[in-house]
Amino acid sequence: MTGDTRLGEAGLLARMLPHLATDPRIEVGPGDDAAVVRFPSPRIVVTTDTLVEGHDFLPATTTPSWIGHKAAVQNLADVAAMGARPLALVVALSAPAETPAPVFEELTIALAGRAEADGAYVVGGDLGTSDRLTVTVTALGSLEDDQAPVLRSGARPGDVLAIGSPQLGRSAAGLALVLSGRIRVQDGQVLGADGTTLAEEGHGDLVAWHDAPEPDLALGWTVGRGARAMMDLSDGLVRDGTRIARASGVLLDLDADALAPDVSQLADLAAELGEDPWAWVLHGGEEHAMLATFAAGSVPAGFRPIGRVLPADGEKAHGVLLDGAPIEGTGFDHFGDQA
Amino acid sequence: MTGDTRLGEAGLLARMLPHLATDPRIEVGPGDDAAVVRFPSPRIVVTTDTLVEGHDFLPATTTPSWIGHKAAVQNLADVAAMGARPLALVVALSAPAETPAPVFEELTIALAGRAEADGAYVVGGDLGTSDRLTVTVTALGSLEDDQAPVLRSGARPGDVLAIGSPQLGRSAAGLALVLSGRIRVQDGQVLGADGTTLAEEGHGDLVAWHDAPEPDLALGWTVGRGARAMMDLSDGLVRDGTRIARASGVLLDLDADALAPDVSQLADLAAELGEDPWAWVLHGGEEHAMLATFAAGSVPAGFRPIGRVLPADGEKAHGVLLDGAPIEGTGFDHFGDQA
Repeated sequence: MTGDTRLGEAGLLARMLPHLATDPRIEVGPGDDAAVVRFPSPRIVVTTDTLVEGHDFLPATTTPSWIGHKAAVQNLADVAAMGARPLALVVALSAPAETPAPVFEELTIALAGRAEADGAYVVGGDLGTSDRLTVTVTALGSLEDDQAPVLRSGARPGDVLAIGSPQLGRSAAGLALVLSGRIRVQDGQVLGADGTTLAEEGHGDLVAWHDAPEPDLALGWTVGRGARAMMDLSDGLVRDGTRIARASGVLLDLDADALAPDVSQLADLAAELGEDPWAWVLHGGEEHAMLATFAAGSVPAGFRPIGRVLPADGEKAHGVLLDGAPIEGTGFDHFGDQA
Repeated sequence: MTGDTRLGEAGLLARMLPHLATDPRIEVGPGDDAAVVRFPSPRIVVTTDTLVEGHDFLPATTTPSWIGHKAAVQNLADVAAMGARPLALVVALSAPAETPAPVFEELTIALAGRAEADGAYVVGGDLGTSDRLTVTVTALGSLEDDQAPVLRSGARPGDVLAIGSPQLGRSAAGLALVLSGRIRVQDGQVLGADGTTLAEEGHGDLVAWHDAPEPDLALGWTVGRGARAMMDLSDGLVRDGTRIARASGVLLDLDADALAPDVSQLADLAAELGEDPWAWVLHGGEEHAMLATFAAGSVPAGFRPIGRVLPADGEKAHGVLLDGAPIEGTGFDHFGDQA
């Protein structure tokens, strides 16, 4: 890739900035000390999230495009989970000085493209060096004066727990495939580790879903605004459900029958890898689908019921049950022992 | 530090979050998917910047507090340089899993404290693992409807170039001391490399200034609003001046007499290290002071004149001159050859 590297910051930016769309609400875009964006309201919803090479993704099993896509999704999802529509993103990108320019370019195209698909724009950023490719996105949206944010603390006994996704566990299954050493990614194609096409076509889709999940985020700022409580599913149904349960002072009881189809869909692959498909569905993170509770009888299209909200019970501190029984494992924690 | 590590994300956050101040304008603070902040206006000024261990700082020559301070300053400065007052920050912090909890805690206290000193609050963040301590801050401010942002493009021939700092080159001199191997930092004290107190007390101040610069940022959103063009001095007088010159279509002519006191103040140390004090003053970055142009006769208190704005001249593409002559060197570029 000689000739692409050492373009300097200005040269790299010249490769990246033309891929950013403009909008009349962006009064000052990239190129000055800061961006200036006119939001629909002064009540700003803001969140930030980082992807680090070797910790949050493995270069040999993803692509710059998928990294950019995922960096956008995980931040857009946090704004959506407040019931707000994202409008602007800023991106801090750090990478080794010898990183080829097309890596920056492809990542930028995918990140900005995924944001634009939901009506949001990359309005600024920062470019620097690091040992490992690191992408930190900050996403901003706004809420009108009459719009309360949808918090984690609003769940009430009697509510229905629902998820804005037709299939859970895909990201965890894709991660298991990545960690099994059976696959690699080349030119955006998921191949067997020996370079041949995968025997099971669906396995490639699972890896792609893990690397670049595609949840329906618009549920958050449309029908999700009717939720009592909402968050995006980033660290697994049990860990994230526990957050809603604790914030709301309730218990969540998952319905095994409602989750059984998700499990059976992944059962063959789990058996092949010697894994438990229930663990993928219960503890798998990085889906970024909307997890919400609604008043009974009010679950809107796009969400499906997966459990119910019960009164708090001091004996069951865990916060999330499955058909009334405690669940083993705790989901993902960057700084703790893993389930 | 056994017992402090492996607290888990929740345990680390429990050490960090109590140090964040609250404010009525923060409707939702840390703990949900995103923060919600009520700004004075819907025209939001937003910027992001990253510090990476080993690239932007060396652990043996700084402290967690200074890293947090600098991460705040470099972002607050970008908002200030638009003529806006910062109100909210989000912080993405990545570090090795074995990082002692006090590192997170000290960094947070300093970062939040420095922000609060200028009226801004840490309202949210992200915590994850990485090989090297990495801090990405995003800072937000707002502009009222009748307030135009102060851009880099507004400089006009006849303007006075001015800097909101009594002394340039300190950060570069501090960096030279760091890179000389003559000093180390222990318990927040700058010592000689052999652990003894430094012979020259001022040298410690230079290292502290490099690690935790303390520019007068309020100049940006007070008297700086009267500037024709403004930016913060992050990559050196020549490189940043060139950005103003190019954006405005002008030349900047630095006045050697105005900068001579800055140079002479650092001359002894430069001689001792075999360096050129003029290079520190002309190319030294990370001062984060406000660099601005004002209409002749209108330089406000807090700024001092250091040059003038000339009409563009096709022959002198460089953009910045010193007493009418071209300047050698180009300042700092993460992805290019260094001056």
